[in-house]
Amino acid sequence: MLSINKRKYLKSLNNKKHRLIEKKVLIEGLRIIDEGISSGLNFEHIWISNRHDKHSVIYLNLIKKIKTCDIPYTFEIDKDIQFISNTKNSQGIVALLTVDDLFNENLHFFSDKIVILDRISDPGNLGTIIRTCAWFGITSLILTKSSADIFNPKCLRSSMGGHFYIDNCVYLSNKKIVDFISLHKYKLYCSSMEGKSIYNLESNDKWALILGSEAHGINEELLVGEKITIPKKGSIESLNVSIASGSMLDYLTRG
Amino acid sequence: MLSINKRKYLKSLNNKKHRLIEKKVLIEGLRIIDEGISSGLNFEHIWISNRHDKHSVIYLNLIKKIKTCDIPYTFEIDKDIQFISNTKNSQGIVALLTVDDLFNENLHFFSDKIVILDRISDPGNLGTIIRTCAWFGITSLILTKSSADIFNPKCLRSSMGGHFYIDNCVYLSNKKIVDFISLHKYKLYCSSMEGKSIYNLESNDKWALILGSEAHGINEELLVGEKITIPKKGSIESLNVSIASGSMLDYLTRG
Repeated sequence: MLSINKRKYLKSLNNKKHRLIEKKVLIEGLRIIDEGISSGLNFEHIWISNRHDKHSVIYLNLIKKIKTCDIPYTFEIDKDIQFISNTKNSQGIVALLTVDDLFNENLHFFSDKIVILDRISDPGNLGTIIRTCAWFGITSLILTKSSADIFNPKCLRSSMGGHFYIDNCVYLSNKKIVDFISLHKYKLYCSSMEGKSIYNLESNDKWALILGSEAHGINEELLVGEKITIPKKGSIESLNVSIASGSMLDYLTRG
Repeated sequence: MLSINKRKYLKSLNNKKHRLIEKKVLIEGLRIIDEGISSGLNFEHIWISNRHDKHSVIYLNLIKKIKTCDIPYTFEIDKDIQFISNTKNSQGIVALLTVDDLFNENLHFFSDKIVILDRISDPGNLGTIIRTCAWFGITSLILTKSSADIFNPKCLRSSMGGHFYIDNCVYLSNKKIVDFISLHKYKLYCSSMEGKSIYNLESNDKWALILGSEAHGINEELLVGEKITIPKKGSIESLNVSIASGSMLDYLTRG
C-alpha cells in the first residue's frame, strides 16, 4: 500500500519545480511504459491498479516483461493510482523514472543531425515533435530556455514513448546554440514561412534544423541559417509546427 | 447584454447533440474568427468581451473587418463570454456560425483529391489534419461514421480555421465510401505501417488517401487500395496520424 507521504511525494512530481529538484518524473499509461521497458529504461518502480483483470493477455505480457527486467512493481488500490495520476481517466499504471538516466546533456556527444526547438510552448506539440524525431532517427535535441518542459505530463503523453529514443537533450541560450552550430560547422536550416522549398534541398551529412514557436516563429538571434519552407498549395495562413517538423525531417533524412 | 436564455442556448452548443439539432456551432478565438471572416464566412453574430482594450490595433483591425462584412456584433461583460466559452482561458471573443453554410455534403461536388478519415477519435488530431488538408489545398473530406465530431470545440481549436477552407465534407458508411471510390475511379491510397514507400509514388491526378485511427489503423472493409508508408529511420513503433497526413499529402500534392 502507498503511504500518504509516498502518494504526496509522487503527486508532487506533476509539478515542474518538484521534477527539477528531484530529477524524477512519472510516466503513465500502458503503451508508453511498455515502450520504455522495450527501449531498455530502468524504471525505479511501477504501480499498477488492482482494478485490472490480472489474467488479461495484455497485463500478463507486461508483468512478464517487468519481471524479466527486474523492475520493482506493486499492485495498489485504484484510488491511490488515480490520486498520483495526472490524467482524468488514468489507465491505472504509473512508473517512476530518474531523469538523469535519460538524456546526455554534454554537447560533445551530440550527433550530426540535430533538431533545435525555439520556444515551442505547447507541451502537446513538443511531445508530437519528439515522437516524430524518434521516427526519423533524430537522437539529439536542443531547446531554447523558454521552451516548454520536456517532462511536462502532456508532453510525455503525446510523445508516446518518443523520449526514450532521444539520447541527447539540453536547454541552451540562443548565443550558446549559435556558437555551437558555428564551431562544429553544422549546416543550419531555419523553418520559415518564406524560404527555399524543401523540394530543392541538397543533401547534407551534418545539419541542424530549427523550428520556432507558432506565434512568434524563430528568434532573430537564431535566424542565421538557410530559411526553408514547405510549399503551400491551399490558402490557410500557417501549418502546425509539429506537421512542419514531420515533412522537413522526412526530406532531410532521405539522404 | 446577453439574456439568461440566450447564454444557456449558446452554451448548449458545446454539446454535440445540440449542435446537430441546431446546426449551429460556436467559434472561439481571435485568430480563428479573423481567418473565418477572411475566408468569406457569414457569422450570425460575434460577441466580444468588454475586458479588451478597444483601442488596441489588433481589435481595431478586427472590428473594421467585422463592420466591412456587415456581421452583427456586440460587446458583453467578460463573465458572460466566459460562461458561453468552452475554454478555461477564453480569449474573450465568440462567434456563432450556421453549419449548413460550411460544407457541401453532395458527393457530386467532391474534388479529384480526397482525404478519408477512418475513426480518428482524438478531436485534436482531427483538427490538425483538417488544418494540414487546408495547407495542401485539399478541399474534400469523407469521415467514417465513428470518427470524432468535426465541430467538436477541441477540433475547431486545433484546426485554427482550417475548416473554412474545406468545401465538401460528409460522414459515410464504409460500404458507401468503397462504392463511391470505385464508381468514380479514384486511385485509392491506404496509409499503413507496411506498404510502398511514399518516395516511390507515381503521380496521379485523381486520388483518395485514407488515414486510420492510431489504435486500430484502417478498417478491413476500407483496406482495398494501395498501402503506402512513410519510411521509418528510427526505432519507435508508430508515427502520429496527423504527422503521417502531412508527409503523405506533401508527396501526393507535389504533382
